[in-house]
Amino acid sequence: MLDPVLARIDSDLPQALDRLTEFLRIQSISTDPAYKDEVEKAADWLVADLASIGFAAEKHDTPGHPMVVAHGQAPDEASGPHLLFYGHYDVQPVDPLELWDHDPFDPRIEERDGKKIIRGRGASDDKGQLMTFVEACRAWKAVHGSLPLQLSFLFEGEEESGSPSLVPYMEENANALKADLALICDTSMVAPGVPSIASQLRGMLKDEFTLKGPAMDLHSGHYGGPAINPLREISRIISSFHDVTGRVAVEGFYDDVEEVPAEILRQWEASGFDEADYLANAGLTRPHGEEGYSTLIQQWARPTLEINGLWGGYQGAGTKTVIPAEAHCKLTCRLVGAMDPADIRSKLRAHVEAQLKPDLEIEWDMDLDGSAASVMNTDRPEFEKARLALSDEWNREAVFSGMGGSIPIAGHFKTVLDMDAMLIGFANEDDRIHSPNEKYDLDSYHKGIRSWARVLAALAG
Amino acid sequence: MLDPVLARIDSDLPQALDRLTEFLRIQSISTDPAYKDEVEKAADWLVADLASIGFAAEKHDTPGHPMVVAHGQAPDEASGPHLLFYGHYDVQPVDPLELWDHDPFDPRIEERDGKKIIRGRGASDDKGQLMTFVEACRAWKAVHGSLPLQLSFLFEGEEESGSPSLVPYMEENANALKADLALICDTSMVAPGVPSIASQLRGMLKDEFTLKGPAMDLHSGHYGGPAINPLREISRIISSFHDVTGRVAVEGFYDDVEEVPAEILRQWEASGFDEADYLANAGLTRPHGEEGYSTLIQQWARPTLEINGLWGGYQGAGTKTVIPAEAHCKLTCRLVGAMDPADIRSKLRAHVEAQLKPDLEIEWDMDLDGSAASVMNTDRPEFEKARLALSDEWNREAVFSGMGGSIPIAGHFKTVLDMDAMLIGFANEDDRIHSPNEKYDLDSYHKGIRSWARVLAALAG
Repeated sequence: MLDPVLARIDSDLPQALDRLTEFLRIQSISTDPAYKDEVEKAADWLVADLASIGFAAEKHDTPGHPMVVAHGQAPDEASGPHLLFYGHYDVQPVDPLELWDHDPFDPRIEERDGKKIIRGRGASDDKGQLMTFVEACRAWKAVHGSLPLQLSFLFEGEEESGSPSLVPYMEENANALKADLALICDTSMVAPGVPSIASQLRGMLKDEFTLKGPAMDLHSGHYGGPAINPLREISRIISSFHDVTGRVAVEGFYDDVEEVPAEILRQWEASGFDEADYLANAGLTRPHGEEGYSTLIQQWARPTLEINGLWGGYQGAGTKTVIPAEAHCKLTCRLVGAMDPADIRSKLRAHVEAQLKPDLEIEWDMDLDGSAASVMNTDRPEFEKARLALSDEWNREAVFSGMGGSIPIAGHFKTVLDMDAMLIGFANEDDRIHSPNEKYDLDSYHKGIRSWARVLAALAG
Repeated sequence: MLDPVLARIDSDLPQALDRLTEFLRIQSISTDPAYKDEVEKAADWLVADLASIGFAAEKHDTPGHPMVVAHGQAPDEASGPHLLFYGHYDVQPVDPLELWDHDPFDPRIEERDGKKIIRGRGASDDKGQLMTFVEACRAWKAVHGSLPLQLSFLFEGEEESGSPSLVPYMEENANALKADLALICDTSMVAPGVPSIASQLRGMLKDEFTLKGPAMDLHSGHYGGPAINPLREISRIISSFHDVTGRVAVEGFYDDVEEVPAEILRQWEASGFDEADYLANAGLTRPHGEEGYSTLIQQWARPTLEINGLWGGYQGAGTKTVIPAEAHCKLTCRLVGAMDPADIRSKLRAHVEAQLKPDLEIEWDMDLDGSAASVMNTDRPEFEKARLALSDEWNREAVFSGMGGSIPIAGHFKTVLDMDAMLIGFANEDDRIHSPNEKYDLDSYHKGIRSWARVLAALAG
């Protein structure tokens, strides 16, 4: 069954690239209302493309951008799990435009560092990745007239703007969306050429506070000395967040954190993750996280407390002798294991409030959400089947890898639809997603399509 | 000699207020090139006003705004020191304009909290204050036809933009400017109704640095943990500047700092400084400086290290999961005693650089200047004569007070012209200088003019 599908994928690659190029031309920036029509257009494009393969696809309105949903026929001889594939058709904004080598919505196939790439906004995140799956389905249908198992699609147009409509939509359409396993193609490979299934994702907690001291900005000649300075105080508070070993010093922060099991650790260490390369990409010579943990564990399996924004006082040219009335801090925590965002938020806030001196007041932003970490259910037989299928395609053992980032959708499938999710992606670390000159390797696209054909065969078999 | 002069001042007060009002209408904002003609106009106004009293005043060009210089005739019977009076005719910008009760350049006499004030930009800083001296001279000339001692005037138009032309001008015109004692009217009274001679001013050191970590902004999912975060690092560095008692922890910072002599301290404590009022004006309930020092000493006689600006990462709405490539800090130190700005700068920089971890780099701003503290030579007989003259006018013992701010001109008179300076001012803490709704009390103006008449008589006598 599989070989003719793979052959079809190879021969159809130029057309598959044309389709991706057409899709990338649509300026589906979801955060900017000026692009609302373009987001609609991308949804329509997907509906039409899925219909051309033979899927009954529909565009469903939400309070924000539409969902595209399609259901395939179950095969004549029902076999394998019912799969729900998720991807997103919206893209990040393109600023700063002047840093792009060419129009981000005029995608081009180029050669760079000896490999072919397609460059344009969304090439990797997520239009290129989602199309690897769509093209695999197209080849199956072209060769065999049907897919080897039952399949549904859910494409979202708000992922880059926080997915406000997603959970309500899933809740309202639970029956239609419920399947046996979700597939998500929105992740990277551990290293170039190393096929990877994400086995765990970190969660995230966001918070923000304003520290208020004097009643108004003061003159540092007149009040310097007696006045409390919120910039000095916020620095003291931030420096209390970690001890000298790099461990977060908030009481109870690690209560629900467990060490990585030895077996997982062995897998990760054999995954091909290149520590020196990873650090050098960021201009670093060594890891700066918790002492006693490797770079890889610091990134995938340890929680963090990071300051993302800090400001107060005068930022212009020259000097202003001001003691400002307030200072501001934005922070995020990456969460692992069973850490509960609400619990960590309250511990963090208690830590900060315990540091306040007289004449200081604090205001917290109340509107920030959080998501717990996700650990994939890799004991399900589909994971090992997929791993072997990926290993066959890439001629290299596929790995279960951790991930430092947060993909809340995986958790939503579990909590709203009680479904496990499997995350397989073919992006590379140098794809510059969210940045100027985003690209996707043609190798990722071609072998990605072939990978999904193999995974479908393996899960159906 | 004095009584008819005081009587003349009283009877001429309405005209003196008219002259001040006219002077305040000129929009002599020195920092904004758009107001260049207005600054010229203020200089011309002063030349004409001094000429109307009988002084040969001239406007002298500089690379920036002009100096106004005038020399009075020595009295027939030469007596007393040759005095050089300094003031500045430029004013601060008026933003934010919407916070003014009326046009800042349409000065009005109003009643507020039971006292009469004149409200407008420059009413206190420094047009109102400098006119107290000019009006005293006018009354002397009107009554006696001449002044009781030899007098010169130096009016600057760049004080609010850092006085770039002042020292070069003083150096080039040293012979013409040299006198026995400089008088400066640009300071406040310790408390309302308490006539004050500033006996010491703090100096200032400015510095600014950028802390650089990763080669570019990083994603906190991808790099959170292993990456060094410049916001966390700059907070750690800033929090190392002070120990838990509020003392600056930079090695050698206090090497040239001495305790306030007991006699000076007794004077200060009797000066009428109202600690609770001073703190409450800033919304504070207690002093936050070095433990073991009173609010007044913290403000007047102890050095500080203040953060005036701090920023890095994302400052917009919502969250951005960024680990920024760099962080920025602006700081100033107030200096006392013999502290040398260059020495303190090198100690401060050494302190910061000793805190740097691997993968951090620092860039210092190289263009920032500093000025040492000034201690007035209160042993000169003129100080005690002036103090008694002020006490007579205000019916309250005049005090020698410290000052937390920095007035570099006092140091320039010493270093460039080898002249002592005496600072007497009639401003009040609530004059809102540099802020919207600047005002000057009519009491400050009237009794200020009378005070100078008495001081001139005392110094001549």
